[in-house]
Amino acid sequence: MALIVQKYGGTSMGTPERILNVARRVKRWHDHGHQVVVVVSAMSGETNRLLGLAKAITESPDPRELDQMVSTGEQVTIAMLAMALKSLGVSARSCTGGQVGIRTDKSYTKARIQSIDADGMHRDLNNGMVLIVAGFQGVDEDGNITTLGRGGSDTTGVALAAALKATECQIYTDVDGVYTTDPRVAPKASKLDRITFEEMLEMASLGSKVLQIRSVEFAGKYQVPLRVLSSFDEGQDGAFDAHWQQTTGTLITTELDSTMEQPIISGIAFNRDEAKLTVLGVPDQPGVALSLLAPISDANIEVDMIVQNVAEDGTTDFTFTVNRSEFKKALSILQETGKAINAREVSGSDSIVKVSIVGVGMRSHAGVATRMFRSLAKENINIQMISTSEIKISVVIDENYLELAVRSLHTEFELDRESGESSVHG
Amino acid sequence: MALIVQKYGGTSMGTPERILNVARRVKRWHDHGHQVVVVVSAMSGETNRLLGLAKAITESPDPRELDQMVSTGEQVTIAMLAMALKSLGVSARSCTGGQVGIRTDKSYTKARIQSIDADGMHRDLNNGMVLIVAGFQGVDEDGNITTLGRGGSDTTGVALAAALKATECQIYTDVDGVYTTDPRVAPKASKLDRITFEEMLEMASLGSKVLQIRSVEFAGKYQVPLRVLSSFDEGQDGAFDAHWQQTTGTLITTELDSTMEQPIISGIAFNRDEAKLTVLGVPDQPGVALSLLAPISDANIEVDMIVQNVAEDGTTDFTFTVNRSEFKKALSILQETGKAINAREVSGSDSIVKVSIVGVGMRSHAGVATRMFRSLAKENINIQMISTSEIKISVVIDENYLELAVRSLHTEFELDRESGESSVHG
Repeated sequence: MALIVQKYGGTSMGTPERILNVARRVKRWHDHGHQVVVVVSAMSGETNRLLGLAKAITESPDPRELDQMVSTGEQVTIAMLAMALKSLGVSARSCTGGQVGIRTDKSYTKARIQSIDADGMHRDLNNGMVLIVAGFQGVDEDGNITTLGRGGSDTTGVALAAALKATECQIYTDVDGVYTTDPRVAPKASKLDRITFEEMLEMASLGSKVLQIRSVEFAGKYQVPLRVLSSFDEGQDGAFDAHWQQTTGTLITTELDSTMEQPIISGIAFNRDEAKLTVLGVPDQPGVALSLLAPISDANIEVDMIVQNVAEDGTTDFTFTVNRSEFKKALSILQETGKAINAREVSGSDSIVKVSIVGVGMRSHAGVATRMFRSLAKENINIQMISTSEIKISVVIDENYLELAVRSLHTEFELDRESGESSVHG
Repeated sequence: MALIVQKYGGTSMGTPERILNVARRVKRWHDHGHQVVVVVSAMSGETNRLLGLAKAITESPDPRELDQMVSTGEQVTIAMLAMALKSLGVSARSCTGGQVGIRTDKSYTKARIQSIDADGMHRDLNNGMVLIVAGFQGVDEDGNITTLGRGGSDTTGVALAAALKATECQIYTDVDGVYTTDPRVAPKASKLDRITFEEMLEMASLGSKVLQIRSVEFAGKYQVPLRVLSSFDEGQDGAFDAHWQQTTGTLITTELDSTMEQPIISGIAFNRDEAKLTVLGVPDQPGVALSLLAPISDANIEVDMIVQNVAEDGTTDFTFTVNRSEFKKALSILQETGKAINAREVSGSDSIVKVSIVGVGMRSHAGVATRMFRSLAKENINIQMISTSEIKISVVIDENYLELAVRSLHTEFELDRESGESSVHG
């Protein structure tokens, strides 16, 4: 018998009929003797409807009142799911964040969870009850309702799983797992059975939007196994025996079992949304990076990759990437700064992409970078920038070569789906 | 400086624009130095929308979950009104039933208020804060959300006014007060400045649907002055001096000031929704009323007026009224019973109406009934049944004579509006 926390997003809770489907799924887990805690989001569109009402009152609604208001979206869906479960004969109870003791700080609209009353939940679960908890919300010490900010329901799910020491936290979404890369770019992309938290973080921040980064960080910190599964695939949770852990969705967990053969690379991430800026002939002296980047961050422009070459003739070259929508603004700021520090030239391009290979396996395998660069060279793809971390190598290339690069790397690192594997969702 | 509880219904809270209007009104009271507690309903249509979602899940939703769900309607409007007030520079805070300490029993969907934390509210009010409280809801001792049933927001308003010892509880609605009778029937109907709780109860139960009966009973029991006013009449609360109590809406209060000349009759109520049933030649013996009425109430049919004539020749006649929609069902039950007790005849009519004159003044004025009957006789209206209470005389007449009867009684008891009075709303 396992204790499972399941989280369903707004699409899964989008209509009464879908909620009844969720109830039937929860009942199957419960019928098989598992203890189940369900975390739900508001019906898709409801949070935006409420924000629209607030905006119709005032341009800048008071944050406390905003939380008081938008938290009702989840209060409706927990009640609907509890009704549905009770109508199927399952003992169930809906709980707001306050009712289940999710205590947060007082940072309205982006509160942090401080504590959860796990004892009360264990009591109810031991009595055979399914608990349905409103995602995205808590209460502060004075009983004010708070919300956790974007992706908050994932965070609620992980926090409950951590507090309850759950076997795993299952995130039901509209895809059936995490893929080696985007199947629309590389048709041979395959679903990963397992991936580490670190890899998932690198994949997520690079554009695989399956999970909110914050909930993955949280799960990693508290060592809560996270599983991504599809809420629309009826057969997916059919196997309730001891083997379900190996067979469905993608399990995000700590370092993979060392007795298993680890793949060198788990996935290929990419980001079409970047632009690069270069300053050539920068005087090679202390503080030059600061003098170039400070005006950029003062303008609230987020910088991603930063590369500085070694100095030659007393000058150095400096390149960084920003979000493509901020390219023009960043370029004009940089031209000012370039002049001020007597740089030789300021240039940039918004027709570039970043492609990254991610995998904890590269730690123990030499030559991964060489293998990556050789694969790209074979396709005649020019590398404009390189940046590496312990489990990731990113390159910036011309955007025209994105698909070619992803597919050739996908094949090079043996990620291509074998025939006979299940077909790809989403 | 007064402490005022204001209650706004779903129509007044129906759009963001109307909520801003309510905020401006509340601000005027607050600006004049009054302490203000505002009780609000959900936006009109919202409670039905939520009930529809519940019905789409299951035909008989669990009552606890239903309360968890429908209570969100008011949670949204309190937040919107608080946002609106804060955007106008007024210190305000929205409070759910639980946040303001409205403790109820555990009767979901029809809970009774047990206690209210008045001290906490006084503290906030003394700090100059406007409190905006969700109507219709509370929490039980275990923190479960409960709702108070139909008209529950009026009840919340009165209960808060009682707990806070408020100067008065103002019920804002879409009419500007209580009228001597329905203006659509008697165009000369005039607005009452004052009416007693007892009169209001008689008027309300007879078809004047301005206030929920339960809240009037509650207000009477705890001696909370209740005022009915229009939320759409901008000028109505213009007079913030000591005289506002005499000038706006209708004040429902305890026995009127004895130094004032009291009208004999305060209003004419009527009910088109009744049908009468008569049993002739019933053996005049103990238990006969019971044997006739028990099968009716066993069938869940509500009985209104009951009249039994004195016996003659060992038999008596027995007449009662029921809701018109239950006429046929009641008649067929009564025919069975009539046979069983050897009654001479069972008959009935569903083309009758009840007309009542209501007024505490009739206590001290003899001959009110005679005056009523003479007025009807002058118009050739036949009286089919008569029933009296201490402050009310009701007659049943043919439905064709309803308008004629109401108008002639309205004139007879000097209720006709004098020219120059403000025109009639609603």
